Amino acid sequence: MKKLILLVAAAVLLAAGCQTLPIKTKVPARPAGQENVLGLTADPIANVRVGIVGLGDRGGWAAVRLTYVPGCTVAAVCDIEADRVETACRRVEERGCARPAEYVGEKAYLDLCKSDDIDLVYICTDWKMHVPIALAAMENGKHAAVEVPSATNLQECWALVNMSEKTRKHCAILENCCYDFFEMSALAVAQAGVFGDIVHAEGAYIHNLGPWWGGYYKNWRMEFNTEYRGDVYATHGLGPVCQALNIHRGDRLKTLVSMDTDAFTGRKMTGNPNFANGDQTSTLIRTEKGKTILIQHNVMNPRFYDRMYQLVGTEGYAGKYPVEQILLSSEMDETGEVNAKDLVEEVPLSPEQMEMLFARYPTPVLTPELTELAKEVGGHGGMDYIMDYRLIYCLNNGLPLDEDVYDLAEWSCIGELSRISIEHGSAPVEFPDFTRGDWNKVDGFHYAFAE
Amino acid sequence: MKKLILLVAAAVLLAAGCQTLPIKTKVPARPAGQENVLGLTADPIANVRVGIVGLGDRGGWAAVRLTYVPGCTVAAVCDIEADRVETACRRVEERGCARPAEYVGEKAYLDLCKSDDIDLVYICTDWKMHVPIALAAMENGKHAAVEVPSATNLQECWALVNMSEKTRKHCAILENCCYDFFEMSALAVAQAGVFGDIVHAEGAYIHNLGPWWGGYYKNWRMEFNTEYRGDVYATHGLGPVCQALNIHRGDRLKTLVSMDTDAFTGRKMTGNPNFANGDQTSTLIRTEKGKTILIQHNVMNPRFYDRMYQLVGTEGYAGKYPVEQILLSSEMDETGEVNAKDLVEEVPLSPEQMEMLFARYPTPVLTPELTELAKEVGGHGGMDYIMDYRLIYCLNNGLPLDEDVYDLAEWSCIGELSRISIEHGSAPVEFPDFTRGDWNKVDGFHYAFAE
Repeated sequence: MKKLILLVAAAVLLAAGCQTLPIKTKVPARPAGQENVLGLTADPIANVRVGIVGLGDRGGWAAVRLTYVPGCTVAAVCDIEADRVETACRRVEERGCARPAEYVGEKAYLDLCKSDDIDLVYICTDWKMHVPIALAAMENGKHAAVEVPSATNLQECWALVNMSEKTRKHCAILENCCYDFFEMSALAVAQAGVFGDIVHAEGAYIHNLGPWWGGYYKNWRMEFNTEYRGDVYATHGLGPVCQALNIHRGDRLKTLVSMDTDAFTGRKMTGNPNFANGDQTSTLIRTEKGKTILIQHNVMNPRFYDRMYQLVGTEGYAGKYPVEQILLSSEMDETGEVNAKDLVEEVPLSPEQMEMLFARYPTPVLTPELTELAKEVGGHGGMDYIMDYRLIYCLNNGLPLDEDVYDLAEWSCIGELSRISIEHGSAPVEFPDFTRGDWNKVDGFHYAFAE
Repeated sequence: MKKLILLVAAAVLLAAGCQTLPIKTKVPARPAGQENVLGLTADPIANVRVGIVGLGDRGGWAAVRLTYVPGCTVAAVCDIEADRVETACRRVEERGCARPAEYVGEKAYLDLCKSDDIDLVYICTDWKMHVPIALAAMENGKHAAVEVPSATNLQECWALVNMSEKTRKHCAILENCCYDFFEMSALAVAQAGVFGDIVHAEGAYIHNLGPWWGGYYKNWRMEFNTEYRGDVYATHGLGPVCQALNIHRGDRLKTLVSMDTDAFTGRKMTGNPNFANGDQTSTLIRTEKGKTILIQHNVMNPRFYDRMYQLVGTEGYAGKYPVEQILLSSEMDETGEVNAKDLVEEVPLSPEQMEMLFARYPTPVLTPELTELAKEVGGHGGMDYIMDYRLIYCLNNGLPLDEDVYDLAEWSCIGELSRISIEHGSAPVEFPDFTRGDWNKVDGFHYAFAE
């Protein structure tokens, strides 16, 4: 009996100091009858009636921007505050468009989601409201487009995945950084094989929010960072990288480790010794195919704005910050074509040569007309507009969207996964497979176009 | 009995899938009577007689370079190959100096170490011979200076630490990157408090060795990379960063996680499917005081040369690659003095302003005479010469060296620690405290100068 007690004690002690690695999170079984939404299409919608919920900085601007996108109407606007709704309506009318329907109040989004005059709910609220509103949209037969991060934890990610699969409605992450010129162009060059096999990629959100913290409605962003450790804003960095690495389209995110600094600045700024989010958070991810990704987050320290976009390939390199750079291990001829695969002295491209390369391997997204229109409209230099343009275009034509709900979940789950790793001393954490077994069914990332 | 067996089985299974975190390595007890060598000084040596072992690219050049350093003589040269010894002697004589003593053969270094005509053994061999030669030097009453990485595993690190402590002889890591202009200058600015508290720092060795692999004697570098996974060459990146973070001088390296890509290029280059070293290896380190460090290694893919030197502070930022950048959150006046601590719009410095800042907070190392002399001599733009100059200067004057044996161990142990992490799926690994309890006895990193 004594020996038995000793043995149990030993087992308990061992278990207490132990950690099964990698740390796994729960993958809920797919409900019976539900199928994946890879390549999901819906009936074409000739004119997409958009209902915008959340009219702060992003939503207020989206209301105007969408009036420049062909094939849609800003049919409704919704906010907690009446004056924001009024401002948005006025701006839409100033564009010569019909005044949108108005929804005011904390729960008004439910009415908007139920409305028969809406096809797409476009969500720009504080982060914690993203998922409740998206679920309401899909439950009521609408497609949902969600600002970033589109979900704040794993349970929210799975809720959106399940709802999209169950209702067969689109649930898109509004990740504008996928549509910035260099990122789209480098992707096209990468997909042409010019960089060889991409083995490592980087992204980040490095942007000192110092002057901007006060601009968030009732301080919601500062409160979120006060409460949560980890990379809470990973999608700007991770999105373009996942597209280049064909995530759940031939490869998948497998393991993550994360490490943060102490919350030096957060504690000082707020006077709160329990301020959670570290000044800088760094996350390493390994994929099924043996590639790695580095994602960083820093909204606290004086930094040059930096999304750290970087593709490291076996035959070439592309980096964007602080200066755009491309280097090839092959020769590029005078038409911009890269075809001599012998390793020569590495060739850094001049700006003119980079232009030639991008012209030779252009992104299919950027027709000349779209490029000009985007620049006219503005908004982060065009990427916001191109993002909206692609979204509406695909809905108009009944095409799969560029980003599916699995992208949304993969890019947004970094918040909780990085937190889990950090809370376990930077232990490795396994990514859940949001496709539940179907991550290798699609052959690479592609933009859809009508015939 | 049955229950007992089940319990034991459960305990074993649990233990098998379990890992106590962080992974710890063995810290050998300090032998009785041995004390730490923090701030170690030795009797001044008016003329340091240097014996160089290993006359390949680094050693052959060092033989010439040291003839330009005041206060020393190239007294002996040693190599496996007779022709290399001959070439080195000839080059020294061409400088108008006395012909060095000659040591030829695999074990000739033992005779050099025993010689009464040597004060300092300067080691530039392949990595695996670094430690045996350094131990022989110290055992025979000589100081040792060791090329990088100065030790290839933890057992070697501890052997050098113990020998330096036992013999009270210097054992210095020849980390030239600590002496590059931007790194030394940024360090001085950081030590003046201009960047506030440094919370995150980065370093790397990103240098496609493609054309250079063949230059190593009997292919030793390729063989080492074939055999070992992990960041085997971390010191160029880590050295300057550790000086800025006052490692074992107020803070200490505490936890490491590492992640690599598959060995895509290594396997292709050698045709060996078991080639170990990944194309890119990334390592995150957390310090006792809650700072983080990122170190990267990539010698395989087409990349711009990049040591990724970066200091992220609460009040400013400095980065070197691909372009030198400094950004401050305080105002800098026209003399280069930074004193307004209120947060204003962040101020990126122009090249002229950077010059002003470095002139206002100059590194004590660079006297105008030394700067000019270093540029004349060459060698990575001067940093090799400055490294040697400081080493000999400190030995001339009986001062502590800039780098002690604990720096050597901390920067060199990344090889094995990163390998351990990687082999355990990127699990966190605890740094051993090479000072064995004395990491907080010295108040910050400082260069020593004679009165």
